[in-house]
Amino acid sequence: MTRTLVASKSKTVTIGFDEPFCVIGERINPTGRKKLAAELEAGDFSTVEKDALEQVACGAMVLDVNAGVVYNSNPNPNETEPPLMRRMIELVQGLVDVPLCIDSSVPAALETGLSVAEGRPLVNSVTGEEERLEAILPLVKKYDVPVVAISNDDTGISEDPEVRFAVAKKIVERAADHGIPAHDIVVDPLVMPVGAMATAGRQVFTLVRRLREELGVNTTCGASNISFGLPHRHGINAAFLPMAITAGMTSAIMNPVRQVEMEAIKAANFLMNNDPNGGEWIRFAKVLDVVAEGTPFPDAARAAQAAGGRGGGRRGGRRRSA
Amino acid sequence: MTRTLVASKSKTVTIGFDEPFCVIGERINPTGRKKLAAELEAGDFSTVEKDALEQVACGAMVLDVNAGVVYNSNPNPNETEPPLMRRMIELVQGLVDVPLCIDSSVPAALETGLSVAEGRPLVNSVTGEEERLEAILPLVKKYDVPVVAISNDDTGISEDPEVRFAVAKKIVERAADHGIPAHDIVVDPLVMPVGAMATAGRQVFTLVRRLREELGVNTTCGASNISFGLPHRHGINAAFLPMAITAGMTSAIMNPVRQVEMEAIKAANFLMNNDPNGGEWIRFAKVLDVVAEGTPFPDAARAAQAAGGRGGGRRGGRRRSA
Repeated sequence: MTRTLVASKSKTVTIGFDEPFCVIGERINPTGRKKLAAELEAGDFSTVEKDALEQVACGAMVLDVNAGVVYNSNPNPNETEPPLMRRMIELVQGLVDVPLCIDSSVPAALETGLSVAEGRPLVNSVTGEEERLEAILPLVKKYDVPVVAISNDDTGISEDPEVRFAVAKKIVERAADHGIPAHDIVVDPLVMPVGAMATAGRQVFTLVRRLREELGVNTTCGASNISFGLPHRHGINAAFLPMAITAGMTSAIMNPVRQVEMEAIKAANFLMNNDPNGGEWIRFAKVLDVVAEGTPFPDAARAAQAAGGRGGGRRGGRRRSA
Repeated sequence: MTRTLVASKSKTVTIGFDEPFCVIGERINPTGRKKLAAELEAGDFSTVEKDALEQVACGAMVLDVNAGVVYNSNPNPNETEPPLMRRMIELVQGLVDVPLCIDSSVPAALETGLSVAEGRPLVNSVTGEEERLEAILPLVKKYDVPVVAISNDDTGISEDPEVRFAVAKKIVERAADHGIPAHDIVVDPLVMPVGAMATAGRQVFTLVRRLREELGVNTTCGASNISFGLPHRHGINAAFLPMAITAGMTSAIMNPVRQVEMEAIKAANFLMNNDPNGGEWIRFAKVLDVVAEGTPFPDAARAAQAAGGRGGGRRGGRRRSA
């Protein structure tokens, strides 16, 4: 049985076929968030703090931390990213107890992150590109941590799922050469937008099944990419996640502050028999009761968290019929 | 490729692995609907009319018609059900153009239904019970129609999925003895409530895959049974349907007037590459826009239908960002 262990100082999360789906919160990432990027360059970490607390309250089990700001004052990320990564990781692990996912395309930032993160963080990511393989895998081995493996290589991202499977296989094999076991590789088979490629959904489901059955690896994805450019994209995401879970997907890097996606995942955990007695579903349903009365989801989730995970019941005990 | 053809006078619906999920509207059924039962006994068909129109507007592709009223004036359904079935079918097929699913446990009512239904209705249902097999299969053969096969037998409903698979196999084999091909059998593997049986979801997904791969049959289910007794059950249903579709389920008998379930199915069709260019999703998203402005889903769906399937755009053209 494939089990990928990710840990903070005090908490271990197991990614696995018979575990609840692992939600990796994606929010702490300045890519495409100009305001956050400007804040970080200015040394303002208030959004990072808010994002850390809110994502965990909403159900993130691991937090991705990305320090990829291109400073206006210094355009060289090799110089700016490592110290920013250090500061962000120290801040986040001081605030919340979930494990972290250290996310960077700059190897020096990954190494700095690995040197300061407590427990057993997840590294995000290696690809099938030769330079990345040889830069990242030794770090992964040195720190004995799991790593996200994205199935593109020096030829780019293939639209052919056979090629993406072959790239994933190459990474798993290369990792083995470095002494890294398959259960420490979490493959991202790459999710294409279904609006641009009609086979995108089926490709992922088939790939995830093969990755699990043939390589024995856990899997992840940037889930929201599936709905890029489409109207009512959260409805697409909320169907995609349970479908991917049925195919065998075991984690996703996603925004946990979105109610519909989290609801779909909680329901899917229950339906996959990874929620004993439906306890998590029932707790989540109480949060939904509070949302139904007009409270925004993150606020309802934080109130439930503050009430010790007993959800909206503490706040009034009202129940709506389903 | 397994293709089950169901037809009205003017419209053919194909149930199949590469077809949009077939939504069979369950509403025209007095079971558990005391008010409707009383209306039917009194000769009032206004609810049937409303349910027929509304379900089709909301996306039902086939309508189930069940005349199972136990009259206060006559407790013998063998006498009361056939004439009521005739009247209901004549009424419904005069109102809407979708194919019908003739639903009864009274063989005489099924035969009356078959004698008046235009096109190629679906029969609901045969089971693995000897008496049912020998009563229903000859009718199915005589009228050359497809049939729903429920996987229970004279020993009842087994909690063991192996037994339910064996019952389905027996029905398919017995049908073959009667000259009925497997592609005219739509197996209902029986969905248990996940709140009572933790493995209920996984059982269905495994069974559906086996039924498809080993028997080559289409499948259906009473979808809402999965969430029986749970809070926020529509959230469970809305995850269950895409998961079942991923496993290979090709139809469900369900309430199409529920937005969240229909949204999940439309998204799943798109993700399974059974919605060319996402045209259906985009049309449905326009209905969701109207719902977001405060219109109830059935009303928004009927308005979109009246506007020629172009959805809410006609009503104002406003679009909300997703």
